[in-house]
Amino acid sequence: MNYPVIPEIDHSVRKSASAQQDSLTKPTGSMGRLEALSIDIAGMTGKIAPKLNNRAVFLMAADHGITKEGVSPYPAEVTPQMVMNFLNHGAAINVLTRQSKSDVLIVDVGVNYDFPDLPGLVRRKVAYGTANMLHEPAMTRTQAEDAIRVGMDVLNEAADRGLELAATGEMGIGNTTASAAITALLCDRKPSEVTGRGTGLDDEGLRRKISIIEKVLSARDPDPKDPMDILCKVGGLEIAGMTGVTIAAAARRIPLVMDGLISTAAAALADKLVPGVRNYLIAGHLSPEAGHHFLLESLGKYPLLQLDMRVGEGTGAALAFNLIDAANNILREMATFDTAGISNRD
Amino acid sequence: MNYPVIPEIDHSVRKSASAQQDSLTKPTGSMGRLEALSIDIAGMTGKIAPKLNNRAVFLMAADHGITKEGVSPYPAEVTPQMVMNFLNHGAAINVLTRQSKSDVLIVDVGVNYDFPDLPGLVRRKVAYGTANMLHEPAMTRTQAEDAIRVGMDVLNEAADRGLELAATGEMGIGNTTASAAITALLCDRKPSEVTGRGTGLDDEGLRRKISIIEKVLSARDPDPKDPMDILCKVGGLEIAGMTGVTIAAAARRIPLVMDGLISTAAAALADKLVPGVRNYLIAGHLSPEAGHHFLLESLGKYPLLQLDMRVGEGTGAALAFNLIDAANNILREMATFDTAGISNRD
Repeated sequence: MNYPVIPEIDHSVRKSASAQQDSLTKPTGSMGRLEALSIDIAGMTGKIAPKLNNRAVFLMAADHGITKEGVSPYPAEVTPQMVMNFLNHGAAINVLTRQSKSDVLIVDVGVNYDFPDLPGLVRRKVAYGTANMLHEPAMTRTQAEDAIRVGMDVLNEAADRGLELAATGEMGIGNTTASAAITALLCDRKPSEVTGRGTGLDDEGLRRKISIIEKVLSARDPDPKDPMDILCKVGGLEIAGMTGVTIAAAARRIPLVMDGLISTAAAALADKLVPGVRNYLIAGHLSPEAGHHFLLESLGKYPLLQLDMRVGEGTGAALAFNLIDAANNILREMATFDTAGISNRD
Repeated sequence: MNYPVIPEIDHSVRKSASAQQDSLTKPTGSMGRLEALSIDIAGMTGKIAPKLNNRAVFLMAADHGITKEGVSPYPAEVTPQMVMNFLNHGAAINVLTRQSKSDVLIVDVGVNYDFPDLPGLVRRKVAYGTANMLHEPAMTRTQAEDAIRVGMDVLNEAADRGLELAATGEMGIGNTTASAAITALLCDRKPSEVTGRGTGLDDEGLRRKISIIEKVLSARDPDPKDPMDILCKVGGLEIAGMTGVTIAAAARRIPLVMDGLISTAAAALADKLVPGVRNYLIAGHLSPEAGHHFLLESLGKYPLLQLDMRVGEGTGAALAFNLIDAANNILREMATFDTAGISNRD
């Protein structure tokens, strides 16, 4: 499979943005992480304080064979039901993208349900969910590559229409199990260290989930150095889709905001598959899912928000859009010490 | 001095908001701190998911006699210069209140400068800055009470015009020194534990600031159990003003978003002066100023944002307005499991 080349960030524009921050009427560095963010965005886009009005959350939905093992308190049919909820604008991501003036693209990349042609639904189903990875690889290599291609396609189509800011989100009952397995491999951690309660497992459920992940890793034995092997054996179709979105965004120099564990697992795989992807990544929030902070750490990213949110769907990323706006607005709109005639420090 | 009585929060509306959160199409509790926030706001306002469109940051400005001791890297004349910057819409708080569709009320409660009558400036000067608290009490009791009254007045006037959401912010070179002294007393901590770099002191400057605060506390010896004694001896006119804003907001059942160290010190004093104030407080963000987390802890509050911001002016609070909107929007706009026909957990 051919991946696009990820361009270098623009160090010269980065430097200009940094100098401009220092000229603004506030103590040097006092906007903290928002200053760093505005400088990062300048390097990614090659523009100082761009408005990034054309924005979208790419919400990839798919089902997981591993749900047969009882890894989630919710039944698998919630995946297509929630897709309908997204299309009817009733879900958390609809509320938050309305607030942050963002589009949300709902992509069926592998839901175990035949949707009719519905307004707002992008039908790019690769399979009716993954296989049960306890007994066989979750996906064939062809399926994984097809799903990555779906993600690259939807991002590139949006980029051709002027997309300036992207985020990944997902829906897929069972997908924190796949993501915890990916995280264990990428971060060299035990399943017990990176597995969380997902949508709300109790203690016994969490123990069972950890034990299933242990068995999956032992049975599938993916090569931790081979991201495609990991993705095929213990991944998911929506995870592969988000990996594709992330790669294509970086290739187009579009800042990509990661959401929680699953979205970040997809981004970490993207960064392993194609060097340089991480330079275009922004960590929207920190989820309480155990593995998330390991993934963010491995990517060298610090989350903008820490609100104990564990909805998925791209909600943490959509909420972070406002902070991205704030970072750029500060850099674009504030007066300088010179123009405002303010005494600078001694 | 007569303070208003703070009404009980509405436990019945709180309970309804909590039940409504549980009915929405997301895993129970999965919006984390935003769920808790929406429930708190319901209790404060007596309304479920109010829109809170009428919002303002009360930005109180004043000077500090202690600046003569070299506690800030910026000269004292920056206080009136920044007030002009606020009025010309060039400061960080102007950018962030524009983004969050909030008013910002600039109140001169004690700047050492004679402003002409300027559009947007509320002229309620109590004194030309505080006295040098190293040698005498910062304020007389009358001055402190007058400044509190200014704060209560401006809040009440805005409330009469329909204010629904408030925040406090400040400008006053030297005011992290006063706030660290207040924090040491309220939280029973040593100056070295609660004193920060303010606008950017170096190591030597920080040591000097701590030493001056130690001398101030020893010379003035305020009664740590008497908030008015603390305020008069080591406080500030803008701090007293924010204390008044905070008390009046709670009395009117208007949620009050605290900003950083100085705003939170004012709120903590307000809560000591009038029982029940804390029930109407929201912590906008955590500042890197050393004492801030002690103050928030003493009030039982957890910050919504942690972005290493140390601008003051109300910027952390204004940025948190967006999260307050998100919390209320989620509660108001999301579909329920029933109406969306989604299977709930087993």
